[in-house]
Amino acid sequence: MIIVMKPKTPQNEIEKIKCKMESLGCEIHESKGHNYHLLGLVGDTSKIDPNQIQANRNVEKLIFVQEPYKKVNRLFHPEDTLISVKNETIGGNRFTIIAGPCSVESEEQIVSIAEEINEAGASFLRGGAFKPRTSPYSFQGLREEGLELLKIAREKTGLPIVTEIMSVDYVEKFVEDVDIIQIGARNMQNFDLLKEVGKTDKPILLKRGMSATIEELLMAAEYIMSEGNENIILCERGIRTFENYTRNTLDLSAIPVIKKLSHLPVIVDPSHAAGLWWLVEPLAKAAVAVGADGLMIEVHNDPANAKCDGQQSIKPERFKSLIKSIKKIADIEGKKM
Amino acid sequence: MIIVMKPKTPQNEIEKIKCKMESLGCEIHESKGHNYHLLGLVGDTSKIDPNQIQANRNVEKLIFVQEPYKKVNRLFHPEDTLISVKNETIGGNRFTIIAGPCSVESEEQIVSIAEEINEAGASFLRGGAFKPRTSPYSFQGLREEGLELLKIAREKTGLPIVTEIMSVDYVEKFVEDVDIIQIGARNMQNFDLLKEVGKTDKPILLKRGMSATIEELLMAAEYIMSEGNENIILCERGIRTFENYTRNTLDLSAIPVIKKLSHLPVIVDPSHAAGLWWLVEPLAKAAVAVGADGLMIEVHNDPANAKCDGQQSIKPERFKSLIKSIKKIADIEGKKM
Amino acid sequence: MIIVMKPKTPQNEIEKIKCKMESLGCEIHESKGHNYHLLGLVGDTSKIDPNQIQANRNVEKLIFVQEPYKKVNRLFHPEDTLISVKNETIGGNRFTIIAGPCSVESEEQIVSIAEEINEAGASFLRGGAFKPRTSPYSFQGLREEGLELLKIAREKTGLPIVTEIMSVDYVEKFVEDVDIIQIGARNMQNFDLLKEVGKTDKPILLKRGMSATIEELLMAAEYIMSEGNENIILCERGIRTFENYTRNTLDLSAIPVIKKLSHLPVIVDPSHAAGLWWLVEPLAKAAVAVGADGLMIEVHNDPANAKCDGQQSIKPERFKSLIKSIKKIADIEGKKM
Amino acid sequence: MIIVMKPKTPQNEIEKIKCKMESLGCEIHESKGHNYHLLGLVGDTSKIDPNQIQANRNVEKLIFVQEPYKKVNRLFHPEDTLISVKNETIGGNRFTIIAGPCSVESEEQIVSIAEEINEAGASFLRGGAFKPRTSPYSFQGLREEGLELLKIAREKTGLPIVTEIMSVDYVEKFVEDVDIIQIGARNMQNFDLLKEVGKTDKPILLKRGMSATIEELLMAAEYIMSEGNENIILCERGIRTFENYTRNTLDLSAIPVIKKLSHLPVIVDPSHAAGLWWLVEPLAKAAVAVGADGLMIEVHNDPANAKCDGQQSIKPERFKSLIKSIKKIADIEGKKM
Repeated sequence: MIIVMKPKTPQNEIEKIKCKMESLGCEIHESKGHNYHLLGLVGDTSKIDPNQIQANRNVEKLIFVQEPYKKVNRLFHPEDTLISVKNETIGGNRFTIIAGPCSVESEEQIVSIAEEINEAGASFLRGGAFKPRTSPYSFQGLREEGLELLKIAREKTGLPIVTEIMSVDYVEKFVEDVDIIQIGARNMQNFDLLKEVGKTDKPILLKRGMSATIEELLMAAEYIMSEGNENIILCERGIRTFENYTRNTLDLSAIPVIKKLSHLPVIVDPSHAAGLWWLVEPLAKAAVAVGADGLMIEVHNDPANAKCDGQQSIKPERFKSLIKSIKKIADIEGKKM
Repeated sequence: MIIVMKPKTPQNEIEKIKCKMESLGCEIHESKGHNYHLLGLVGDTSKIDPNQIQANRNVEKLIFVQEPYKKVNRLFHPEDTLISVKNETIGGNRFTIIAGPCSVESEEQIVSIAEEINEAGASFLRGGAFKPRTSPYSFQGLREEGLELLKIAREKTGLPIVTEIMSVDYVEKFVEDVDIIQIGARNMQNFDLLKEVGKTDKPILLKRGMSATIEELLMAAEYIMSEGNENIILCERGIRTFENYTRNTLDLSAIPVIKKLSHLPVIVDPSHAAGLWWLVEPLAKAAVAVGADGLMIEVHNDPANAKCDGQQSIKPERFKSLIKSIKKIADIEGKKM
Repeated sequence: MIIVMKPKTPQNEIEKIKCKMESLGCEIHESKGHNYHLLGLVGDTSKIDPNQIQANRNVEKLIFVQEPYKKVNRLFHPEDTLISVKNETIGGNRFTIIAGPCSVESEEQIVSIAEEINEAGASFLRGGAFKPRTSPYSFQGLREEGLELLKIAREKTGLPIVTEIMSVDYVEKFVEDVDIIQIGARNMQNFDLLKEVGKTDKPILLKRGMSATIEELLMAAEYIMSEGNENIILCERGIRTFENYTRNTLDLSAIPVIKKLSHLPVIVDPSHAAGLWWLVEPLAKAAVAVGADGLMIEVHNDPANAKCDGQQSIKPERFKSLIKSIKKIADIEGKKM
Repeated sequence: MIIVMKPKTPQNEIEKIKCKMESLGCEIHESKGHNYHLLGLVGDTSKIDPNQIQANRNVEKLIFVQEPYKKVNRLFHPEDTLISVKNETIGGNRFTIIAGPCSVESEEQIVSIAEEINEAGASFLRGGAFKPRTSPYSFQGLREEGLELLKIAREKTGLPIVTEIMSVDYVEKFVEDVDIIQIGARNMQNFDLLKEVGKTDKPILLKRGMSATIEELLMAAEYIMSEGNENIILCERGIRTFENYTRNTLDLSAIPVIKKLSHLPVIVDPSHAAGLWWLVEPLAKAAVAVGADGLMIEVHNDPANAKCDGQQSIKPERFKSLIKSIKKIADIEGKKM
């Protein structure tokens, strides 16, 4: 951390800050330029509250040298983290496909889609039981019943299940029922929820918030890890920008950046990013090429009658041919499916 | 709602959609141009799911004519909504000042700040007990103890209290303890929480999410109203943009827009928007001039030792002089404090 | 400037950079932490090219302590710059109103609007002769003829004229014909144009680009000043964000920020920011309250038949009543009109 | 175009608008709902100015059904446009690599880089002679001398050359000297420049502006085409968003979207988007997978001493190995290099 003092700050004010910082356990490296006076804080800065420093009226600004996240930081954990879920591994040289409908609608629907994606080569079944919807008048999911139907689909196909949690009240039930708990984009900074799932050892799929920076996504993961749960899979699903032809702007640069900054696996959800079914295929292929560890794709056998997000779901046949293209690119990237 | 069919859609596909829409209770006005074929849906469109229409592969796009929110829409409720809290009224020709520290730190701190802002002319005391913090290593608030201290400050000053809720588990307690329940920007789309506070009749201060459009803010308010609670105060607190000199970009245009679209009162939080104490004063004055119904301002008696957000808090003396300027502009706008 | 070396950079690589920096005239303050090794550059850094440092594969990142702009920087020029145009002064304790139609359409139109705004209290007449339009099929302005009509309106009312230049080929003509040359948002980084107008001594009204940071706006002004022209008036006119109810998001926080960072006067254009006539009035008032040095407002006597941007133009009567409100707020702010 | 009238607009006002529209050559399809009254304009709407309609105070909003661009629209030109430059073709099933340094620095530099990229498999040499730089104190390019050096490199390698134009004054010279004229992101809406290059028949590489929507990019291309030049190659190079780990956010979704909306070829510049050399490789591969028609990549033999943007340039060896990966993915996509 580097404190930039305002031009013309009286020396005694600078001394006060130095004393305070030293009393909190830091060593101070001072550097005086023509206009600014810098105080570099070295050593253990964990007891220092940046906001307090910035609140000092003589401080021009505060510059951070080191990332604020620790447990998710690759600097302190150079090897890739691998997440084991039943017989599957996520991360490393594996490429993982999670697929399924936006929401669970009926036993017949979820079982038949599960069978189709299983046959096509997916490793996980996704399906929403509890649905965050922008409008209170839209379908809100089958809730507990949806969870039961997912379990039936899992039993019939062997595919482990991934589904979204929306409230701390359900953590216990999800730990028992599902294989990967998804935290959606809208809850990426629902800190109470992050802490609760952090106390379990269930794999967590953490989606990037619509307006979250990469650093904020990593800080959200840090919340989970700081409670003890190290099984985290990150997911890029598009950010909000001025361009609105697409629902969101898929930020594929985030993939190599995250892999540089953190040891956690990261997958891509092209369906929610684009919001348009015909964009899913090119974006999925690009995600493999850019180095993602997997994909989460919405597949529906009857999009025009889907209860949710049919416009971004692809049909099983198209999914099958997509998997074939993906495999070829994954091969080039040295990843196994 | 207007359905734009893809160029060259076969007539029988158009007929299918028409049939389906009619069976759901709509009348259809058809319009055929050179390249596109439009179907305008008139009448009761409440049973129609826009996503399903968009999922139809022959549909080019869907155009919405009417706003998706109903209960918060000024079209169906032309008069301003006034919110009564104890002896205070928010909205209409009143201009309301809510002030206090970012977080409650101690009895002495909260009581002394409450006394100062009370004397200066504020009508409500704010103070965080449960704090959403980006880092798990930052101060997370005094939680229940913070609520107790706020109640002591209320008793000593008579100021009603406003504080943020972070989890559905606390709704009952907040209803009992506080006067206005705040939903923070990060929880604006925590739909379970919106529904729960919607079932109470406690006034809700709903802050705009960092990347929420005005329409999404109004849809979040619709969630609360659709459960029965009509006591909602909206709050603009800055949106995320590419400009990062300021923490967020305060969107003051949103104030007259919201007042045109909705009957709900709307206030401005310049402290969180700017993130810098010296910007609070000019932005607060601009908020009055643009037509806001009130302000929420962070005030701390010792910002450099505040446990949270000291860099954006102003001191009581400055707050007092700010209130005087605000009063003059409020006068011009015909608002009473 | 602070160079952050990558963790584990070999010492000889660090020495190489130090040597190079010293040979370019800098003193180096070194600071070694647990993970990073910092090199602080003090003294004359003008010969250093930041891009070259960042291109060094051992450099993690480069941190800038000082602003990249010099001549526009308030640090080296603490007093407000005042711009004199004929009998008018812009900046300091003056509040300036520039008004007129989006584009000059005919002699009758521009003269009659000029007379109305003159009577209402405006100090400058604006009107586009050369128009940057998104579509090649839209009205592109009367060009040279438009300039002539502006001159007639000036003669009849005494109002100095402001109009936009679009190409270096016209600099000489504009210097002769107009009183303030406007550089539009789309040309804020047309560096050849900036340099050319920088070689004149004509006052320049420089509008912020739609996606320009405050720093980039100041760097554009630096281009002009570095060629010798110090008569620059900055203009905030809205930035592009995800919110699209309004054409752009007016960034009023930029006003106090610019006044802190620079000595140049800054005005606000609420018409282009909002893109909707009924937003002009509240935003104009907010601009006065936030501390702007003036306003540029589109006024048209027949918006529904305007050849350009009628939807954001207000009528003369409304302009007159707006001027009255503005005067009252300017009074509170200690500004004279 | 659909006009949405305000609720409760008097019938005579609606009649006035209808008359006006009909007099301009449109047919009107009327549709009256509970709250809104819609007027659909069918037929030749070319004489209608949308701004004038929106300026009518009884009009709630205007909805566009059809795209505003015509000549670049795939609807009226279903086949891919192929651009011929010397022996090369861009578009269709060709995948084109343009490579070279950010700026031309010396004969030795440009010739040796040209030889290396030629050997590696690039088809075009890029290099900046006229450089748009944010700071007036940065290297501004060798200008005319740079053009001469590019011509020498072309002569020695046979590679056609691509370089950026910054001012209308140079159009004639560029037409004579270079093979593809580049319009940079900052000049995407320099309409005078677009018109001038539109009058030539030289291939134009048009880069998307940093905050330009896809529609605005296509409208800029329309400017060029409306003057007669149909040889346009579009280029995605990143847009400005709130995420600032990367210089810009590369919007790869734009590629399939542009290919759907327009018949023009579109390439990707990963170097400027990312601003970091280690991101160029993954983003380049993703660009091939997402369906781009080519890449423009910055290559420098000595990035740490480059006069410009060394931090985003890759070295020739890395470029060679990248080309091999790209070839494999291009194969899968059915594209030839």
